[in-house]
Amino acid sequence: MSAGSRVLSIQSHVVFGYVGGKAAVFPLQCLGYDVDVVNTVNFSNHSGYGRLGGTKTTAAELSEIFQGLERNHLLLPGRLLTGYIPGADALSAVADLVDKLKSENPDLIYLLDPVMGDSGRLYVAPDVIPVYRRMLARATMITPNWFEVETLTDISLKDLPSLRRAFAVLHEEYGVPHVVISSIPLAPWLKTALPPNLSADLDPEANHLLCISSSATPAAPSASVVHAQTVQLYPGYFSGVGDLFSALLLAHFVPGDASSVARAASQALYKTHAMLRLTYEHSETLPEDDRQATDDEKDLADPLRKVRRMRGRELRLVQGQDILRGISLQGVREMQPWETFWAPR
Amino acid sequence: MSAGSRVLSIQSHVVFGYVGGKAAVFPLQCLGYDVDVVNTVNFSNHSGYGRLGGTKTTAAELSEIFQGLERNHLLLPGRLLTGYIPGADALSAVADLVDKLKSENPDLIYLLDPVMGDSGRLYVAPDVIPVYRRMLARATMITPNWFEVETLTDISLKDLPSLRRAFAVLHEEYGVPHVVISSIPLAPWLKTALPPNLSADLDPEANHLLCISSSATPAAPSASVVHAQTVQLYPGYFSGVGDLFSALLLAHFVPGDASSVARAASQALYKTHAMLRLTYEHSETLPEDDRQATDDEKDLADPLRKVRRMRGRELRLVQGQDILRGISLQGVREMQPWETFWAPR
Repeated sequence: MSAGSRVLSIQSHVVFGYVGGKAAVFPLQCLGYDVDVVNTVNFSNHSGYGRLGGTKTTAAELSEIFQGLERNHLLLPGRLLTGYIPGADALSAVADLVDKLKSENPDLIYLLDPVMGDSGRLYVAPDVIPVYRRMLARATMITPNWFEVETLTDISLKDLPSLRRAFAVLHEEYGVPHVVISSIPLAPWLKTALPPNLSADLDPEANHLLCISSSATPAAPSASVVHAQTVQLYPGYFSGVGDLFSALLLAHFVPGDASSVARAASQALYKTHAMLRLTYEHSETLPEDDRQATDDEKDLADPLRKVRRMRGRELRLVQGQDILRGISLQGVREMQPWETFWAPR
Repeated sequence: MSAGSRVLSIQSHVVFGYVGGKAAVFPLQCLGYDVDVVNTVNFSNHSGYGRLGGTKTTAAELSEIFQGLERNHLLLPGRLLTGYIPGADALSAVADLVDKLKSENPDLIYLLDPVMGDSGRLYVAPDVIPVYRRMLARATMITPNWFEVETLTDISLKDLPSLRRAFAVLHEEYGVPHVVISSIPLAPWLKTALPPNLSADLDPEANHLLCISSSATPAAPSASVVHAQTVQLYPGYFSGVGDLFSALLLAHFVPGDASSVARAASQALYKTHAMLRLTYEHSETLPEDDRQATDDEKDLADPLRKVRRMRGRELRLVQGQDILRGISLQGVREMQPWETFWAPR
């Protein structure tokens, strides 16, 4: 078994649909990884449906599983992926395991997705935040969303200087080698800040998301190597997209120079976007009832309205597995260097 | 979503290795099925390692998950696969779900693997036996092993007449349409009983396993359509093989005539055997320490001895995924009709 060929994935499990482990494990397996799968929750479906059944795995249960693996010398991952872990106790149990794995194998490639919330809303207990901050130093790369960057750094991202400060804090204060933010709404200030090689081919008619990667360079601690790329935004919300992106980023990462994460991000971004397109196009073929736009009032009046919409927007991972394998993969839009990111205006 | 394209899988989960759901879900996904995955246990590894950590899902927890799925109208399987479910309470919760699914969708294709024990040893609570007997009538097909056939029918299988009686009991008394027993040690009496089309090409130097399928025929209730095929036996024990076979049998099953299960079994048997060969050949490349023959005394003295052997014999599902997809699938040895099975001597 080659060192990097085994992934330990620690995140949520849902029976129906594709978020957390259900969005990450199959892609990793398709790409040739043996995946050891720890379920931090066992839920019927993701929370976007509004209602769910199931239980969270307690810290004690997680520790018992980790001890079982350890006693049998089955903790052999070359790569580690952690995602949604609800509650500080459970997260601390995972943090202890990470410390152990890292001390035994300093080469362990660890992708930490600090799943805490989105668009201004925290959906984990606030006491996980300090635990995540402690864990950051162990990570090879992290994949926070916009809100999670703000939460971890306590910096409100409202302009390029604040974004610079956030990256500096993550790299220098918390010691994170690589930061990848995969789907940033392209606010006007951000659009304006983009260098020509990124803003040139933006369709003025379309909405876009930005993917940024920032890799620390020991040479220039106050700066970092920044890459970015834009993708078109598909209307409406899709669940599990970040989980899929993180799995693909870890799968495609080949340790190397300061651009190695950007190269992996190019693959992950391309495949995730292709999967999203497949899913979106499928959702558009569904009966009108199954693709009603988000409307909290109507959803409240008829909970099944939301359920039908969610169901129709589950990732088409199985149907699109050739995308995951990169079969007939072409036209990958590489992440572009953002040379001027640290340049003072 | 086409009717048969969604599978609900209810069986064990292990973090490391490939048994239960870990042996079934990936193959089903590779073959294009969306799989809804219910974990009846969350263990660190399979019991063959001698030690494990983790917890069983309680009947209450299972019911809560099922209710969550039902409230969200997410119980949409065209096919159902149930495997290891420890304890009568948990099994009863699953039995209730099966009743509900069957009443809502009589066309549901249900493969029931009555996982209870092996080679004379029961490894579930005895009170599951009556529950399984009640569930048999709901199944489209069942995949018991030799011991489980004896346990369900209370018939000791020692000759052709007793095997006939067992099939008759399963088809007539318990109302099972299709029975497939995938890996029967080819005892002398069984070898002698084989018709020429099955015994002809047996290598006298090698050990073999027999796969038998028996499909009830409403026309002749006292008889059934029996097919069989032999495969060479690989030395030593491999875990999860039956779970893989059952998943492939369900995946390849196309409802049709009395031979439709035999056709699916041909595919399942071929792919399972190819995966076993890949796994066996890999295990033979391991350091001698990792492929010590089974020796209870030595294993007791050094538990890690057993662990290393088990680890080296985990199914190579990920490495052999082309086998699962049937890429360059050739030389399938079809299940052969056993015309004389019911013919009196």
